Amino acid sequence: MELTVIGRVESPLKDRASAPKQGDEGAPEAWLAFEAAVADALFGIAAGDEILLLTWLDRAARDVLRVHPRGDLSRGEQGVFNTRSPDRPNPIGLHRVTVLAVEGVRLRVSGLEALDGTPIVDVKPVLGGISER
Amino acid sequence: MELTVIGRVESPLKDRASAPKQGDEGAPEAWLAFEAAVADALFGIAAGDEILLLTWLDRAARDVLRVHPRGDLSRGEQGVFNTRSPDRPNPIGLHRVTVLAVEGVRLRVSGLEALDGTPIVDVKPVLGGISER
Repeated sequence: MELTVIGRVESPLKDRASAPKQGDEGAPEAWLAFEAAVADALFGIAAGDEILLLTWLDRAARDVLRVHPRGDLSRGEQGVFNTRSPDRPNPIGLHRVTVLAVEGVRLRVSGLEALDGTPIVDVKPVLGGISER
Repeated sequence: MELTVIGRVESPLKDRASAPKQGDEGAPEAWLAFEAAVADALFGIAAGDEILLLTWLDRAARDVLRVHPRGDLSRGEQGVFNTRSPDRPNPIGLHRVTVLAVEGVRLRVSGLEALDGTPIVDVKPVLGGISER
């Protein structure tokens, strides 16, 4: 169960302290720079598409099991599986973004809270209703 | 980037041929049997919650980059990142399910298309609106 890096995030966000907690909380646009080896897997993705981006949150702690939600000490601790904390046994980030532009193996996307250099591990389309699949 | 198995799916689905393509296409209920080591990370999850389950699709092919969507040869090939095919460089399954019951480190969930024995790698809550986080 070894993940392959299929690309990297290119973002103005350089550290966790400066990053919004979610993409729709003021996160900047970013580039997704894919490896040439997976170019074929991007075929069909176009500007305007909504996609689910999966990343490997390489600056997260893997030994944390409980947290105060959103770091708010006034809120009781929750299990990390009941939060979106990046700290968790397998720090996979899940981000819903809109594709703004496609330039070869590079995708420009809307509000993304992942940090610069974050490895990309998968991309999936947002599923429509059953009749649209 | 080595994933840890945090649990396993227990399902009547034993092979790909018999599994629906998505959880809302007639998939059966299943148990999620977590490792005791991650019990604390489940704290707060209750019956009625909607969760995102991330799995490692261990029977998928990792060298496939293009497919006919839903295996339908009448449809043109697409890059796997533009489909929900399990075959992809990092075969991470993403499943939205409802928690029906919690029994210790076991969660009973609604329609899940993952096969029996599939490793679980992460669980996240479905995000509500910004004011609910």
